[in-house]
Amino acid sequence: MIPVPSLAEALRHTGQELNQILDRLLPPVEGPEARVHAAMRYAALDGGKRLRPFLVLQTAHLFGVAQQAAERTAAALEMVHCYSLVHDDLPAMDDDDLRRGRPTCHKQFDDATAILAGDGLLTLAFEVLAGPETHSDPQVRCALIAELAQAAGARGMVGGQMIDLEAETQPDLDVAAITRLQQMKTGRLIEFACQAGAILGKAPHQQRHALRAYAHDIGLAFQIADDLLDVVGDPEAVGKGLQKDAQAGKATFVSLLGVDRARAQAEMLVDQAIRHLDSFDEKADLLRQTARFIIERNS
Amino acid sequence: MIPVPSLAEALRHTGQELNQILDRLLPPVEGPEARVHAAMRYAALDGGKRLRPFLVLQTAHLFGVAQQAAERTAAALEMVHCYSLVHDDLPAMDDDDLRRGRPTCHKQFDDATAILAGDGLLTLAFEVLAGPETHSDPQVRCALIAELAQAAGARGMVGGQMIDLEAETQPDLDVAAITRLQQMKTGRLIEFACQAGAILGKAPHQQRHALRAYAHDIGLAFQIADDLLDVVGDPEAVGKGLQKDAQAGKATFVSLLGVDRARAQAEMLVDQAIRHLDSFDEKADLLRQTARFIIERNS
Repeated sequence: MIPVPSLAEALRHTGQELNQILDRLLPPVEGPEARVHAAMRYAALDGGKRLRPFLVLQTAHLFGVAQQAAERTAAALEMVHCYSLVHDDLPAMDDDDLRRGRPTCHKQFDDATAILAGDGLLTLAFEVLAGPETHSDPQVRCALIAELAQAAGARGMVGGQMIDLEAETQPDLDVAAITRLQQMKTGRLIEFACQAGAILGKAPHQQRHALRAYAHDIGLAFQIADDLLDVVGDPEAVGKGLQKDAQAGKATFVSLLGVDRARAQAEMLVDQAIRHLDSFDEKADLLRQTARFIIERNS
Repeated sequence: MIPVPSLAEALRHTGQELNQILDRLLPPVEGPEARVHAAMRYAALDGGKRLRPFLVLQTAHLFGVAQQAAERTAAALEMVHCYSLVHDDLPAMDDDDLRRGRPTCHKQFDDATAILAGDGLLTLAFEVLAGPETHSDPQVRCALIAELAQAAGARGMVGGQMIDLEAETQPDLDVAAITRLQQMKTGRLIEFACQAGAILGKAPHQQRHALRAYAHDIGLAFQIADDLLDVVGDPEAVGKGLQKDAQAGKATFVSLLGVDRARAQAEMLVDQAIRHLDSFDEKADLLRQTARFIIERNS
């Protein structure tokens, strides 16, 4: 029997794998428009925990999905995630200079190039999903595209970022409003990550439902953990400026609940997420570990 | 026999029709994220010549494509076109205050909202194309998505805008370089518009090829006409600031060829475009008129 790899090992492996796939899918730095290709690569390669693609690969694993299908879907999702970071970091939005310990895309290039790089990544994500290499059944490819677009669009991630920007002038948001905001801004993409394997594997409704519930809980736990890191994290490990929310007077889970209750809430959500996986066998062990990791990480 | 409507009439009709479809497809202005929905509507409704959707509807007409399929594809393409205008108008890009005689999206709202509205429109375009209402055959929907993404992405429209921004500091571009730039920045989307009907109608290769050649020629003629309008147009009719390129010292077809040669070149392209339609019957008459209109318009 092959031992289950540790989560850290598996995440590291996914990171390497994903860089290779992204490198193949991203346009080479060539032509008179090379600058935007370079910025897309800067934004998408070598960065982050790759949590969303990891979730795609792991849920695909539950249903025996072909490696290439899972990898391309994971890469497309990561492109959407990276585009959102590039646009969110712009001076007109959150105005961040540092991301993953490096200058943000617009600091490394310029605002115009960063806007275009984000646009290019978002567009490429859909091109990748539409390609026949992603799945032999075009119905499945269309389902992936529709779900990703809904998760990322104006009633999902983009809408969440809109609320978040407006929240800076509305420090009186309550826990329900913050939960909704985060569900849109980060939750929907995590939900897509956990659904993607089920869509690719044409999983039965009940299993899709269990994965959606799992995603919902880890998504919220993830955000609470982020808010905790912003207050009690180590800036060097996190790789970006901290205490931004507190300085901006923004309502967060931590400002509303306090550190202890926020932490307890995140732990409760993680326990609940793991219970949603009860119908899966040991193939879901890394997903169970991931739920724990989400609140135990230091970056 | 039903008389062929005049082009002006047909364009007006398309404009109204498209507003209705876009109104149905765009998110209603509701929820805590309502601001981004309002900005998307501001950017996409009631504006422009609707040339690209018109080309989709007319090429779909050649192959007897169902109205709903053609309309949704036309609307998706117009969303992509409108998103590109919103982002291109941003201060970090072309910094335009006026578009179609109204304040640009970021002037009406703000930069952050405009960035998000553009992102939302681009994402929604792919959601619309992926929906089963667009075509019963998911293979066709995937083909539309792949073609649109290629046309709009970093090796198409987005790449063209990147070159255009860099061209401001490179006034020594020659006609070949400008042609390539414009082919990417505006030509690829016009090409998609003319291909879309053929994709929806599963047209034979030869007819697709003829439409691609037609698109190529009108796309270039369109850009030369734009450059001419920038120099000799009526600002009130055009609805945006003129002589921007000349003031910025940017190389254009007119600066390189002069007004007379540029106009002659555009006329030659239009004649050639019309000849590419020789294998089509009178169903293509409005496409023939469109080619003429492109260089005779005053806005």
